[in-house]
Amino acid sequence: MTYLPGTALGDVDTPALIVDMDVMDANIERMAAFARERGIALRAHVKNHKIPELAWRQVRAGAVGIVCQKLGEAEVMADAGLEDILIPYPIIGPIKVRRLLALARRARVITVVDSREGAAAISAAAVAEGQCIPTMIEVDIGYHRCGVSPDEAASLAAAITAELPGLRFAGLMAYEGHVYSLTTPEEVEAEAVRSFDRLAGCAAQVRARGIPVDSVSSGSSVTYRSAAANGSITEVRAGGYLFGDRSVVALGGSSQADCSLTVLSTVVSVRGSDHVVIDAGAKALSLATLDGLPGFGLIIGHEESPIVRIADEHGMIQVPADGRPFAIGERVQIIPNEHTVVVNQFSELIGVRAGRVEHVWPIAARGLMQ
Amino acid sequence: MTYLPGTALGDVDTPALIVDMDVMDANIERMAAFARERGIALRAHVKNHKIPELAWRQVRAGAVGIVCQKLGEAEVMADAGLEDILIPYPIIGPIKVRRLLALARRARVITVVDSREGAAAISAAAVAEGQCIPTMIEVDIGYHRCGVSPDEAASLAAAITAELPGLRFAGLMAYEGHVYSLTTPEEVEAEAVRSFDRLAGCAAQVRARGIPVDSVSSGSSVTYRSAAANGSITEVRAGGYLFGDRSVVALGGSSQADCSLTVLSTVVSVRGSDHVVIDAGAKALSLATLDGLPGFGLIIGHEESPIVRIADEHGMIQVPADGRPFAIGERVQIIPNEHTVVVNQFSELIGVRAGRVEHVWPIAARGLMQ
Repeated sequence: MTYLPGTALGDVDTPALIVDMDVMDANIERMAAFARERGIALRAHVKNHKIPELAWRQVRAGAVGIVCQKLGEAEVMADAGLEDILIPYPIIGPIKVRRLLALARRARVITVVDSREGAAAISAAAVAEGQCIPTMIEVDIGYHRCGVSPDEAASLAAAITAELPGLRFAGLMAYEGHVYSLTTPEEVEAEAVRSFDRLAGCAAQVRARGIPVDSVSSGSSVTYRSAAANGSITEVRAGGYLFGDRSVVALGGSSQADCSLTVLSTVVSVRGSDHVVIDAGAKALSLATLDGLPGFGLIIGHEESPIVRIADEHGMIQVPADGRPFAIGERVQIIPNEHTVVVNQFSELIGVRAGRVEHVWPIAARGLMQ
Repeated sequence: MTYLPGTALGDVDTPALIVDMDVMDANIERMAAFARERGIALRAHVKNHKIPELAWRQVRAGAVGIVCQKLGEAEVMADAGLEDILIPYPIIGPIKVRRLLALARRARVITVVDSREGAAAISAAAVAEGQCIPTMIEVDIGYHRCGVSPDEAASLAAAITAELPGLRFAGLMAYEGHVYSLTTPEEVEAEAVRSFDRLAGCAAQVRARGIPVDSVSSGSSVTYRSAAANGSITEVRAGGYLFGDRSVVALGGSSQADCSLTVLSTVVSVRGSDHVVIDAGAKALSLATLDGLPGFGLIIGHEESPIVRIADEHGMIQVPADGRPFAIGERVQIIPNEHTVVVNQFSELIGVRAGRVEHVWPIAARGLMQ
């Protein structure tokens, strides 16, 4: 469904993905101002929204460029004229290497490697094509996903510099994703500080070999303050700040009032006083759960009533004895637990200001997982 | 990405959603033959694939019509010429009622209600438009999602028949979704038998009021045998049989050899002998987990190595000490835990026969949650 600008929110069918434009605009400006004031580069992560127009809003506000998790996202963003793109994901296999080089002909693309093998394949292809690709090394600072250990980075940087033509060593990149499994802002901050110190130590090791480290990139919408305070980190990659969600709030990234994104849903069935069914299930809200926070999202105005179960297209709400009742046909807005998986399930995002539709954005890079 | 017919599977970029055409064809024929032989109507659930061409294959094999979970899916299927559509989901609110009536002008649409309030709204609108909508009642036989209790159905059927013009009572519909939370085929069968008996008793109550019950619809790809054995059930709604998944296999619906759907993925990082990262994470495999079955999917040929953690775009595999090793760049096929949420995340399904691409189907009704 699409809607004319000016359509009342009450005329938008459900379930729908809604962003409050005033809140989102303020989020964009606040993070840009933080980076400006602290003298740290902000690189906008677009995996959170996958919408070129929103990436442009972040860049116009001051972001130095964007981050795309996948080549497919980067291709869509380059199609929309975005020019400085970091892809912090291993590019493995001949199809992906070919796509990377093609993309690098029309945008400034920075690739990230975590193995000699992966780097060598891009190097060989780049040499054959007469290209030179800026290449960062991913360092594992505690998340144990991808990345070399901090002690291995210097030798890989030396190999890139001395033995792998077609690559230009461009710095170190790390993601402190393990802090998201903690539960309080204090724990998150303490672990982020430790993790960023590992990255700073790694950068020092590389420099000790006489290799310049132009960029040291880490931090997120939850840990950007600690990243800026570290002193060695030159760039924060953040995307979640645009929308927020229950996870970002719980971990201290922003407040509930900063959550701009909601799923609009309708009550479709009410049985007795305690069993309510809404038309947002796993395909709208996602299966993401959060430690210590009940339910599959937070219903604004019904915070006491958790969404206790979800099926693919149904959400089941448990209303406590003293809870505010729901009525069939009532429409509710739900703050998701984690918005990235939610956004990836919808086809469009509806921007609303003062209760009226202002934009209907196709989620252009949705589902481009390759 | 799209591919020409005849492209080798090895040239398909990852992650990709793959269906083995030989296995799927056999699944379609086997379920159609079962229904034919048992004299029970098969209604094909299309929420599993959301692809009109696959719905047509099911109908051509003998399905009496299709089931769409959402109006948006039904609109896409009607656009493709599919004509007999059951929507077993409460149609609530003026926007949805309007869409239902518009759809009913171009296809045979059966709606399902579980409240007097919901039924009355459709009735009033249908009368105003001069339409008559076949209407089933959803009965809660144990899942406790939507549906009236078995004892309430007769009075709602009487109201539809006597007091709500514009609706024609068309029968009873139930979904035994609670059996999916059980863990063995034996438990599933026992609970399905009990649940279907409740539905049969409910149909008897309605008939005792002198109201004919044309259709009694229940059962799924896991419970179709029990549904056919019940004697009172006239129609099975099944969709999962087309693709299968770990859940369908665990609950006794089909065997692992019948699983036609896999996620094709590439190993992008290997650290030590036990930590392997693939390019299929939550956005490809979904966050669905299964009781008693480790991991977020089953890797064919590496069954001993579970996908123990997933991030949005990464799957982390734990290789046991005696496990078969993985190599960077290796491509693997993964049977998902639950395929409906997985399919809804992809934009296209690639049909492969004998190692070559035969079809690339856009998942046309993907994301149409309204």
